[in-house]
Amino acid sequence: MTHTGDVSQVHDIEILALNPKVNKFATVKPTAVSKKDKENWARLDHSKTIFSDNPLGLTCGMVCPVSTLCQYGCNLAATEEGPINIGGLQQFATDVFKKMNIPQIRDPSLTPIDQLPESYKAKIALIGCGPTSISCGTFLARLGYSDVTIFEKEQYLGGLSSAEIPNYRLNYEVVEFEIKLMKDLGVKVEYGKRLGENGFTVESLHQQGYEVVYLGIGMPEPKIDPVFNGLTTPEGFYTSKEFLPLVSKASKAGMCGCKSKLPELNGRVIVLGAGDTAFDCATSAFRCGAKRVTVCFRRGFSDMRAVPEEVDIAKDERCEFLPYVLPKQVIKRDGKVVAMEFYKTEKGDDGNYAVDEDQFFRVKCDYIISAFGSQIGSVADSCKPLTFNKWGTADIDPLTMQSKTAEWVFCGGDLVGNGTTVEAVNDGKTASWNIHKYLQALHGIPILSDTPQLPNFFTPIDLVDISVEMCGMTFPNPFGLASATPATSAAMIRRSFEQGWGFAVTKTFSLDKDLVTNCSPRIVRGTTSGHHFGPGQGAFLNIELISEKTCAYWCKAVTELKRDFPKHIVIASIMCGFNKEDWTELAKKAEASGADGLELNLSCPHGMGEKGMGLACGQDTELVFHICQWVRAAVKIPFFAKLTPNVTEIKDIAKAAHDGGADGVTAINTVSGLMGLKGDSNAWPAIGDEKRTTYGGVSGNATRPMALRAVSSIRKTLPDYPIMATGGCDSADATIQFLHCGASVVQICSSVQNQDFTVVGDYITGLKTYLYMQSREDLLKWDGQSPPNEVINRNPKLQGLPKFGKYLLERNRIDTEEKQTKDLLQVTNPLTPSPNPTLPVPTIKDQINRAIPRIGRHDDLRRDQQVVAIVDEDKCINCGKCYMTCNDSGYQAIQFDGKTHIPLVTDLCTGCDLCLSVCPVPDCITMVPRTTVYKPDRGLIVSN
Amino acid sequence: MTHTGDVSQVHDIEILALNPKVNKFATVKPTAVSKKDKENWARLDHSKTIFSDNPLGLTCGMVCPVSTLCQYGCNLAATEEGPINIGGLQQFATDVFKKMNIPQIRDPSLTPIDQLPESYKAKIALIGCGPTSISCGTFLARLGYSDVTIFEKEQYLGGLSSAEIPNYRLNYEVVEFEIKLMKDLGVKVEYGKRLGENGFTVESLHQQGYEVVYLGIGMPEPKIDPVFNGLTTPEGFYTSKEFLPLVSKASKAGMCGCKSKLPELNGRVIVLGAGDTAFDCATSAFRCGAKRVTVCFRRGFSDMRAVPEEVDIAKDERCEFLPYVLPKQVIKRDGKVVAMEFYKTEKGDDGNYAVDEDQFFRVKCDYIISAFGSQIGSVADSCKPLTFNKWGTADIDPLTMQSKTAEWVFCGGDLVGNGTTVEAVNDGKTASWNIHKYLQALHGIPILSDTPQLPNFFTPIDLVDISVEMCGMTFPNPFGLASATPATSAAMIRRSFEQGWGFAVTKTFSLDKDLVTNCSPRIVRGTTSGHHFGPGQGAFLNIELISEKTCAYWCKAVTELKRDFPKHIVIASIMCGFNKEDWTELAKKAEASGADGLELNLSCPHGMGEKGMGLACGQDTELVFHICQWVRAAVKIPFFAKLTPNVTEIKDIAKAAHDGGADGVTAINTVSGLMGLKGDSNAWPAIGDEKRTTYGGVSGNATRPMALRAVSSIRKTLPDYPIMATGGCDSADATIQFLHCGASVVQICSSVQNQDFTVVGDYITGLKTYLYMQSREDLLKWDGQSPPNEVINRNPKLQGLPKFGKYLLERNRIDTEEKQTKDLLQVTNPLTPSPNPTLPVPTIKDQINRAIPRIGRHDDLRRDQQVVAIVDEDKCINCGKCYMTCNDSGYQAIQFDGKTHIPLVTDLCTGCDLCLSVCPVPDCITMVPRTTVYKPDRGLIVSN
Repeated sequence: MTHTGDVSQVHDIEILALNPKVNKFATVKPTAVSKKDKENWARLDHSKTIFSDNPLGLTCGMVCPVSTLCQYGCNLAATEEGPINIGGLQQFATDVFKKMNIPQIRDPSLTPIDQLPESYKAKIALIGCGPTSISCGTFLARLGYSDVTIFEKEQYLGGLSSAEIPNYRLNYEVVEFEIKLMKDLGVKVEYGKRLGENGFTVESLHQQGYEVVYLGIGMPEPKIDPVFNGLTTPEGFYTSKEFLPLVSKASKAGMCGCKSKLPELNGRVIVLGAGDTAFDCATSAFRCGAKRVTVCFRRGFSDMRAVPEEVDIAKDERCEFLPYVLPKQVIKRDGKVVAMEFYKTEKGDDGNYAVDEDQFFRVKCDYIISAFGSQIGSVADSCKPLTFNKWGTADIDPLTMQSKTAEWVFCGGDLVGNGTTVEAVNDGKTASWNIHKYLQALHGIPILSDTPQLPNFFTPIDLVDISVEMCGMTFPNPFGLASATPATSAAMIRRSFEQGWGFAVTKTFSLDKDLVTNCSPRIVRGTTSGHHFGPGQGAFLNIELISEKTCAYWCKAVTELKRDFPKHIVIASIMCGFNKEDWTELAKKAEASGADGLELNLSCPHGMGEKGMGLACGQDTELVFHICQWVRAAVKIPFFAKLTPNVTEIKDIAKAAHDGGADGVTAINTVSGLMGLKGDSNAWPAIGDEKRTTYGGVSGNATRPMALRAVSSIRKTLPDYPIMATGGCDSADATIQFLHCGASVVQICSSVQNQDFTVVGDYITGLKTYLYMQSREDLLKWDGQSPPNEVINRNPKLQGLPKFGKYLLERNRIDTEEKQTKDLLQVTNPLTPSPNPTLPVPTIKDQINRAIPRIGRHDDLRRDQQVVAIVDEDKCINCGKCYMTCNDSGYQAIQFDGKTHIPLVTDLCTGCDLCLSVCPVPDCITMVPRTTVYKPDRGLIVSN
Repeated sequence: MTHTGDVSQVHDIEILALNPKVNKFATVKPTAVSKKDKENWARLDHSKTIFSDNPLGLTCGMVCPVSTLCQYGCNLAATEEGPINIGGLQQFATDVFKKMNIPQIRDPSLTPIDQLPESYKAKIALIGCGPTSISCGTFLARLGYSDVTIFEKEQYLGGLSSAEIPNYRLNYEVVEFEIKLMKDLGVKVEYGKRLGENGFTVESLHQQGYEVVYLGIGMPEPKIDPVFNGLTTPEGFYTSKEFLPLVSKASKAGMCGCKSKLPELNGRVIVLGAGDTAFDCATSAFRCGAKRVTVCFRRGFSDMRAVPEEVDIAKDERCEFLPYVLPKQVIKRDGKVVAMEFYKTEKGDDGNYAVDEDQFFRVKCDYIISAFGSQIGSVADSCKPLTFNKWGTADIDPLTMQSKTAEWVFCGGDLVGNGTTVEAVNDGKTASWNIHKYLQALHGIPILSDTPQLPNFFTPIDLVDISVEMCGMTFPNPFGLASATPATSAAMIRRSFEQGWGFAVTKTFSLDKDLVTNCSPRIVRGTTSGHHFGPGQGAFLNIELISEKTCAYWCKAVTELKRDFPKHIVIASIMCGFNKEDWTELAKKAEASGADGLELNLSCPHGMGEKGMGLACGQDTELVFHICQWVRAAVKIPFFAKLTPNVTEIKDIAKAAHDGGADGVTAINTVSGLMGLKGDSNAWPAIGDEKRTTYGGVSGNATRPMALRAVSSIRKTLPDYPIMATGGCDSADATIQFLHCGASVVQICSSVQNQDFTVVGDYITGLKTYLYMQSREDLLKWDGQSPPNEVINRNPKLQGLPKFGKYLLERNRIDTEEKQTKDLLQVTNPLTPSPNPTLPVPTIKDQINRAIPRIGRHDDLRRDQQVVAIVDEDKCINCGKCYMTCNDSGYQAIQFDGKTHIPLVTDLCTGCDLCLSVCPVPDCITMVPRTTVYKPDRGLIVSN
């Protein structure tokens, strides 16, 4: 939200008023989603969570008042960074899902529709296709009801979402999208069915055999103050119930084919009321040409009912406010409204507002919009047997949404007094469960559970198989715990399997004669990057030793884990000194425990090396070869050598393991390092009074480039040799990179340290999504879960105009002019049915090694195809980062206009890519093929 | 700013109203300053920049309306993250400087005071010790004027900053601090000198020999609407000029010894006016017990003069607004105000407001505060010969601030109509230059420059010597360009020296027979961490080869650089294959060019190795030994072997270089890696149509732990062997860590790529600050530029109360109650004179190796002194991060209350430190000594 007292803002608003159709917030993106976050953000997993709970997840992300809901309760509100932008992130995740155009399916683990009993074929009618019915219908269909029909009075769907929420907050495309997801499950929709018309009533539906009727019709008639009786639109009077749908129809592309024009409100507009609707009327009035809009209300400013978000938008758009007034009469002249007279109100010490009928005054106006709420009105009759209470809302049991007078009637939303979209959705959800209970009982199959068990959101993505075979072991998915802190105890491995992890490598254990004792502190977070929340973490460093637990503990643990989780893979990590007897004894014990495989820890970089173990064994090809030979002789099960990156050539060590008989390798263990010192020159961790330290192992994202290099170089040396990758794997995206570099499965530690075991949910969904997308030709151009570059259709008039200060105002003006010449009702991205996959969904195996053929020698890189940078002026924010880096670290090939701050890439560009690397705007700078031959600048003549 | 429509907010405000002294924003910190940023933020360098420009930098950071000033113009306003929190960061930087308590000194490069001509001894009087005089006095003193006196009418200083800006926005401590900085330069202050009293007039000063008088007295008298004539405080009437100083005196600790009570406003308060002062009155009225406060004003809401920040605060505190009214009369009963009558105003189509005298109404109230601005009033007489114009402001030349009627009179601030603090400061600054010009001309030494040249802010920190000697070379400071992109050309090295860099290593050049040609793209930013703005950068990866320029170019460049920058150190970086003749020829050429030293590139990890150069030479001790021997035989100047970290033991390679005769080593070159792949399995960078790639060199913060390890391990192996460190050095803080690990100087590339050469300013100031702080016993507990943990005096009643939802409200209530029992006027942190250093300021040499004795074997770490975690409940935000990591990656030693979200560390804690590592709040979790003996949990009985 921008606040400014600058006069330019007035100008800006005048533009807005000139331009009734400007979609002010169409391009708003959540603030927390930066260039980098977009790479890692779990769009699909979050969408799944959101839509499971809320079938109108995208709508709610866009319109719900987060300041009074989720963000209000966010713990981070107490931090300097403030609460998480929950609404924005919800919108982002679900909007990306919408772009993918993937259908909803029923939970594949439930009984298929055609095998369900007759009771699921009961006819159910839902009246009014707004948020509460969409929600109710979706959940009923997920439960398995196959004959659900929504009856809508209009020729468009969405209810208030479509008719009353302005386009700049919610467009019709979003409404259609969520309805499509519902229809994917078989819910039917009939148009033009208005209660009370043509004999269409609640009772009539019952008579037609509908066993349940759900009413989600909102409050169809406006409440009107008697002073407005008889006033008409030609005179300058509207109710919000008339005004907002007119605005919507004329500004929401796709909502109807009417191509109607916006109401023209060229003058002073008074809006009466102080609820959210009043503010929607006020901002819409500006878009209809109003010169001035004043919201008039009975209470004081701080007692307004509207949510702060709505008030703030109106305030930013220079709406006026007139508190403490009550309509007295409307003054007309020549058949047109010219002024309103108000009584003065005053707040008493008891907090109540009283009208002072002796005090009144007049305010000039040309138009009046009454937004005093709505009521059931004459439609009540057609709702029978439903009755209404003294507040005018439906008489129901709020715990079940069931009518108190007819058990086959349920309702929710505005009709029961729940005005926000999210409440309406919740009503539909609550009702669906109780309709289910009612119908099943009716059909003699009573449901005894008191806890609603509503099925989650599923898509074909959930059907994708991500199992992978390696060395004869079948991994249910490629995600496992590394032999590290998350595998500290059997209880923790157990928890991880319950969360969905595919395998676990135990924390390394030794023979009891080698038992260790830790010192503390011993694990620190990296100082190499930020982010304390979310998936990003830079690095950790630890000086923790192997497990403090005995060999017997771990053997018993493995046995019990395999007993309880037979389909999960358990690998025992073991370590000894360079001693044949020890390795033989320990490997045999571990095999006897029932482990699927072994991992030989030849790489722990701290402490153990001093005892001749860990990395002391793993840095020498001879030792690695012999240890593997010993273990090969001792056991039949597959085993892996876990390699250290702290060597000159890791592929040579891998070769030694291979030659010694190991079935595969794990790469990489942590990188030896010293995380940092404090100002007093003491390291952290610092141990004991003397504050001593030792080199520890660096893990996490910071080491991923080394891990990707190690994995791919081992692969190039040993084609088809099984590799378990570890080192900064923190997402589905990173996992795919490791697969492409040659790994079959990945082991994870740091990102669990950074969060907890639940991260695997995102990794699984993300990986399935990636594979599924390969089967859809329309999605092949996506980069993981990120859609391809958005091409902006540049308006040539905007060329050379930067994005700040007076230039920005000029851009806005031109942009506005441009929009006025266009048909904004034209549907640009029509919602199409979700395409069926035309390609096979690839398996994990198909992904392994994909990148390898293109990784090679520097000498093999082409010198005859070079690139240069171009800056997309429309995306550039004129910050100068590209200029700064090019000037002091590049080739001084960018000029920067001191006045306009527009960067210009010159012929000196050598395509080094630094500018793209530091640019904060996604896709603003791109590297394009060089059209001339690249001739290096040799500085001075070449000798000889 | 929190916005909420929740009823609880009302409750919160009632607390506020009950608690007149609550210092609502006392603990506000800038939002952009997170746990990690605090480690890297350039407090001192920024403070220096800010105070150089603005002697009231802290005040302005706290009170200036950023939304209409700096942030309004911020380029980042166009990004999803929004504009930089400029005001907050300004406040943070200068507030930390304030805590250090370091005095201001004059620019040490200027002529000392006692050597300046008589003209600098001219008597100068400044009247009124508010922002504009403090600014003017500071700049005059910086210029060298030694007889400057400020005359203040009150017994406290600061003008409006003290008297009228409420305590929650600006406390007296800040005012005193900035005045102290001015007094450090010798400016004198006299109290109790009121214009017009006891013959004290502008003329009288002139008669006493003051050659210049500067008037910064503001507008001393209120403007009053005639309807208020005769009204008195006992009747319930205040002007803002009466009310705000009463509030300030009773709420600002340290401002006066009066211990006065706040005015009691128990009832309904009407504030008249819509400027910033009106809102200060409104929020202050709540603190004086007002039940309801209504700000009444003539215009509409969107035409208010007040800045959005002020209006928002009032709105958040539930202030009421009554627009479109003009006072008609005050209604009294029994000698007390009981109501006000207002005329109605209306905005015409021309934008002007007209009063409708036929329409009026009455509003009940118990108190009226008139905030209709101020005027010069009767004081004008005492200002003669200064005259006033028709708008009532001083008649001056706005370019010079000089009176039009008397050339020895200058003025600024409110008196000339410039109402914000920053404008007043600027007036004083402008005036100081013109007073300087006037006085010097008067004394016959006219200044011809038209461009003001005002001296910058200096402190004893600037006097600290950070030069360092290594191998006979004297480095002006330890910061140099690494042989990398920032040293691509001679022109760039030249620019770097002009910016203050101490040395540069050229980009590596070869004999012309080995000339290379780059491919593109070739430099990418790391995907290992975030932050596109600010000092943080995760990593870069490059596949750029050595310089494309000829040997002749570089030799000429070195010669010219040494000619033009004789005090800067230029080191030539060279590379050949393993060939004695080549190394001899190239080394001799480089020596002949006049280079101070050579660096042998034995470590470039990409491309060059394939030619048998770079890392191909540097991974083998034999080759390194021989190359160093050859170069030793060829040249007399010092030379360094630049080492690769891509080896099993870097210290062995260093030893070989040492034995071969190298004078020192550079550690580390980049780490071999593969940054990442896109979804289509192509790497970035991808070259040519085939999208091939090769392993590149990872640099930047991600590699710092490896670099610190390498440097310290070389140092432990070779005591006193000179080391140039490189690898993720991105701040003064990181530089100190490298020095402590054994380096003498540092080479930098990535952080220049991330920004530009100007970063060195921060590094230099930061390093000097660190050294200076070692000389001050009171600052020894700081960690770099971060103050020690703030100890919160916990209120036992707050125990067990979390920080969200209803618990937070209860905390606020208790906190408020507590504050009411305390004397909030007591000065808790009295401003003391800046202490003189009692210890010698250490040199860079003193820092080298400081950490080495404490880095050692894991086995040497104590097992008998362990730690456990404790959570500071007062700092905890109940986010659960500690619980999550402990449960799934630690020892399941933290319990988490499902209701209160309060974490409890149990006996199971092994002190691993993970919880501290992931906690988002600085100093919330600390590790404290374990009081019991640590007994590892062995799981099952130990065998044998």
